[in-house]
Amino acid sequence: MKDTQISIKDDFWNEYTELVRTTVIPYQWEALNDRIQDAEPSYSIRNFRIAAGLEKGEFGGWIFQDSDLYKWLEAVAYSLERQPDPELENIADEAIELIGQAQHENGYLNTYFTIQEPGKEWSNLYEAHELYCAGHLFEAAVAYYRATGKRKLLDISCRFADLIASLFGKEPGQMQAYCGHPEVELALVKLYQATGEERYLNLSLYFIDERGSKPNYFLEEWERRGRTTIWAQGEPNLEVYQSHLPVREQPVAVGHAVRAVYLYTAMADLARLTGDVKLREACERLWANTTGKQMYITGGIGATHLGEAFTFDHDLPNDIVYAETCASIGLIFWARRMLQLEAKSEYADVMERALYNNVLGSMAKDGKHFFYVNPLEVWPEASAKSPDKFHVKPVRQKWFGCSCCPPNVARLLGSLDEYIYDVSEDGSTVRVHLFIGSEVAFETGGRKIVINQKSELPWNGQVEFKISLQEDKGDVPFMLALRIPNWFSSKEPVLKINGESVRYHVDKGYATVYREWQDGDQVEWLLPIETLLIAANPLIRADAGKAAIQRGPLVYCVEEADNGKPLASLSLAEVPELSASKASELLGGCVVVEGNGVVIDNSGWVEGQPYQPLTKHRESVRFKAIPYYLWGNREPGEMNVWLRY
Amino acid sequence: MKDTQISIKDDFWNEYTELVRTTVIPYQWEALNDRIQDAEPSYSIRNFRIAAGLEKGEFGGWIFQDSDLYKWLEAVAYSLERQPDPELENIADEAIELIGQAQHENGYLNTYFTIQEPGKEWSNLYEAHELYCAGHLFEAAVAYYRATGKRKLLDISCRFADLIASLFGKEPGQMQAYCGHPEVELALVKLYQATGEERYLNLSLYFIDERGSKPNYFLEEWERRGRTTIWAQGEPNLEVYQSHLPVREQPVAVGHAVRAVYLYTAMADLARLTGDVKLREACERLWANTTGKQMYITGGIGATHLGEAFTFDHDLPNDIVYAETCASIGLIFWARRMLQLEAKSEYADVMERALYNNVLGSMAKDGKHFFYVNPLEVWPEASAKSPDKFHVKPVRQKWFGCSCCPPNVARLLGSLDEYIYDVSEDGSTVRVHLFIGSEVAFETGGRKIVINQKSELPWNGQVEFKISLQEDKGDVPFMLALRIPNWFSSKEPVLKINGESVRYHVDKGYATVYREWQDGDQVEWLLPIETLLIAANPLIRADAGKAAIQRGPLVYCVEEADNGKPLASLSLAEVPELSASKASELLGGCVVVEGNGVVIDNSGWVEGQPYQPLTKHRESVRFKAIPYYLWGNREPGEMNVWLRY
Repeated sequence: MKDTQISIKDDFWNEYTELVRTTVIPYQWEALNDRIQDAEPSYSIRNFRIAAGLEKGEFGGWIFQDSDLYKWLEAVAYSLERQPDPELENIADEAIELIGQAQHENGYLNTYFTIQEPGKEWSNLYEAHELYCAGHLFEAAVAYYRATGKRKLLDISCRFADLIASLFGKEPGQMQAYCGHPEVELALVKLYQATGEERYLNLSLYFIDERGSKPNYFLEEWERRGRTTIWAQGEPNLEVYQSHLPVREQPVAVGHAVRAVYLYTAMADLARLTGDVKLREACERLWANTTGKQMYITGGIGATHLGEAFTFDHDLPNDIVYAETCASIGLIFWARRMLQLEAKSEYADVMERALYNNVLGSMAKDGKHFFYVNPLEVWPEASAKSPDKFHVKPVRQKWFGCSCCPPNVARLLGSLDEYIYDVSEDGSTVRVHLFIGSEVAFETGGRKIVINQKSELPWNGQVEFKISLQEDKGDVPFMLALRIPNWFSSKEPVLKINGESVRYHVDKGYATVYREWQDGDQVEWLLPIETLLIAANPLIRADAGKAAIQRGPLVYCVEEADNGKPLASLSLAEVPELSASKASELLGGCVVVEGNGVVIDNSGWVEGQPYQPLTKHRESVRFKAIPYYLWGNREPGEMNVWLRY
Repeated sequence: MKDTQISIKDDFWNEYTELVRTTVIPYQWEALNDRIQDAEPSYSIRNFRIAAGLEKGEFGGWIFQDSDLYKWLEAVAYSLERQPDPELENIADEAIELIGQAQHENGYLNTYFTIQEPGKEWSNLYEAHELYCAGHLFEAAVAYYRATGKRKLLDISCRFADLIASLFGKEPGQMQAYCGHPEVELALVKLYQATGEERYLNLSLYFIDERGSKPNYFLEEWERRGRTTIWAQGEPNLEVYQSHLPVREQPVAVGHAVRAVYLYTAMADLARLTGDVKLREACERLWANTTGKQMYITGGIGATHLGEAFTFDHDLPNDIVYAETCASIGLIFWARRMLQLEAKSEYADVMERALYNNVLGSMAKDGKHFFYVNPLEVWPEASAKSPDKFHVKPVRQKWFGCSCCPPNVARLLGSLDEYIYDVSEDGSTVRVHLFIGSEVAFETGGRKIVINQKSELPWNGQVEFKISLQEDKGDVPFMLALRIPNWFSSKEPVLKINGESVRYHVDKGYATVYREWQDGDQVEWLLPIETLLIAANPLIRADAGKAAIQRGPLVYCVEEADNGKPLASLSLAEVPELSASKASELLGGCVVVEGNGVVIDNSGWVEGQPYQPLTKHRESVRFKAIPYYLWGNREPGEMNVWLRY
């Protein structure tokens, strides 16, 4: 994608990218400075100031708190790249200055160990997140360098990366080890791409190769630490920490979901960059398992809050769910790399599913409140009173003690343009993964091309591309490949060029058209958006006898605000007659789905009577469903994605 | 019930009482002596030997391990009372000897503190279970004294109780405190009843009155201990430990379910013995809440394993359920006391429900394997692989590290005769709560009466009573009150006396007949047993759109062994046509229920495809359901009580 320029111009998404720029980034800066009232403090900036010697005090927050500042800086970089903002850049420069002051002479950088346990660096790779934080530093540095051309953070990163490269590896005296939380691996690939220094790629590969080898490093380290750990008791949980098996031998996705997908992301990068077939096969195998057997219809992954982890195939409870925001974001990172490895539409399908549902739903319309856990079924009283559901919040929170998710949303939405297209090196193929209004400019055969995409998604399937050839030197041949979305429609998309229907070839889920394009060519890509009832595989016990509503990329849900409670009493009628209509006043404007439902008639029930013979008295109702991503923006209430039929 | 003699003669129940006598009691003695291979060790006897100075070593097991031996002795006492066994009595006498040797000069008795923390006695009433263990000692002592006439254990108990009475109370220098696990309160009532010493009744009442008062003792004690606890971190959880409110002010059942019902049991005893109206109202209020809003259809209580606790009204998940065996046993204890407080059939209904379902199902047919948690929905793979369900075992266990449940089952089943009848002081009313073949002998107006009950329950509703007047002195007047079970039948039971149908008066759920009885009178009580589909209150979200099968007192379930898997794919047909039939070969003989079901056709599903448009292809099947109490006695597999309709 050398020299490819992409910018988003889309009514739906610009609302979010603007929100990130104007609200999320400033708000999160306040949060990092502990200036949000009644929110959990972050301690991030304060930790850096203490580590830099500018303030006295104890380290605050989680051991990986540094990463929040780095993720924020990465989001800032994306924002500055798209829209210059000298004031914001100034704030970021000052933060970078502070980071530099906290760095040790030898390149080491981690405020926890600097403040709290100097001398104990690298003694707890299992839990202490030093390399994880380094990874987020590198990602921020690469983004900031790309956005501003300023090398300061990149230099800080390279010094730290060089220190790490000197400490870890197979040479005598080096640690043969890796981090308990994958992240540095994918970040080192970015650092390699930004600097061209192969040693960073090799270090990433080393970490990937070392992981899960025997004897197990985490077990040895645990013994050295006198069998102590920070959090859980007992022996290290190798699955949760992605250390149970060498990565190429892992048959299914297990363990902490964010750790897993961050790891898989780096694996996919490295499989592409090194051509390692075993690594690629592992990626494909883990992808098939994750998205085929362990993914919620919303694109959420990680079924249990205990270890924030995958459990096992088809175990996807809707109410005690985890489906962490960061895990879906990591799934999007991974899907993006899988697309680069092989242009198959299923990767983009999952990317889109996670983006429009789990991730988008994690942030409130105000950009200041976030979900960490993204449930598919909510009973607010249970969230308040059942310890099994304390982690499932019915209302987005201002900030979290462990606030990995909000800045992760900011950096994803801020760099969303990177997920829409793939243009081949020579510009001979332009592949459209996501239908988001945008402009892509690239070169092929020495000619500059600009494609303008217009999209009415997610509400309407009308997508248009206008092709502009910048110079008047005749037609330009290239292949346009348009993703055929897996929205379960029975109809096929229609392709029109300059108003004429055109037959297209299908290649791995992409409609491809190769032709000599003329300036001003108009392409219409008419996607059939139907309002459908979707069933889950019968092996997913939690969804048996139930259906979810999906319309285009959007999964729908019913809320108490529209349908009363208990929502569990509502089921689909024999003939649901679903209808979709624009509700411009509702939640900032959306398409609502209405349908025929039946509600259990509770008139025969006496207060305090728990059981009685079954009667099938039912009341017919017309229910209303809203897009899942908009749930929880009104009064706290019950919510349900899967409806009994 | 002075001078009332009751003995069980019942095909169904004698199998269990015999199992307790011939298998459970000897097996548990082996367990207490750590002689069961591959089972969690108990350490019980070993702890007493160490405390008695006969052996050296560390204390083993939970801090409340002493109670296992006491509960076993109580079960032995019931067994000896019903069937003398010199060898067993000898073993018990030796165990009692050992207990005596472990008792301190001043009466104190607790092997944990004697071995592990001498000098720290009474410093952790919140968690250390000293009074709880004392309570089980007293219960065992009373039972053993009644069974054998031997006072040794009773004397040990009285010495300990007297020490306790001197230490706790409102006098200067006394601790104004109570135990974190209620039990001693109900045991002191028994000690009072056995000895006639009112100081034990008063001590019980003191504990009940003190509980939940302010300033809170557990918080003060926690401060004194330097804010440390044994188990959970942080401030004491007053709800879990039944210390959040004075008992008379508690509006709903909260906290650890066993602690709660043991407490309520004592409250009901004291309300009856003291006539305390406020206490009685609290019992009735908590009863209505527990059984009307927080009880599973199986009679299980306590919805969450976190704190083994109640959660809140109508929160009764079937799969992450707790429904601890001991909690249902405690519910039976409480129901028994409520019946003594007021003879209302609903108390006996709950008693019967918990007994025939949750409690009976907790023990394997071999008497050697037990459930601690009694789920209503089981997916063995989830129990193995999802940390949210590790506590839900698909197979009964040999023993538990915390093995409160098995000896509790033994002492309940061993004393089941005490739950069948209530005969008024003067013998003028005989009330039949449970329909269990048995003989009750009592006196009224100086005449001795024997009633023989024959019952074919739970399979058949035919119950017969034969009245025998021992001497030939003419007819005897008394009232026979027969419970009208709430099995949801639309028909009324038929009462026949000497073959003639008789109309009866209904008083609080009991059919009452007052007459001059003649020797040889035959009473038939014909209970309509129908196979019914039962619905849960619509506020119980977990059971919405589902029905359970109940036949007489038995709740039914479907198992993978009969119906394949996934069981979630099975639902009830529009017209289920339930039929019941005797299956004499199945699981030792039972009545199975068959019905029309539909199974989701999974033929259209490709391996690894998680979601697709809903089709309603269904396959008709005839499913088979077995009594819930028999589940899990074949190959481990899925099980389900609630079926979609």
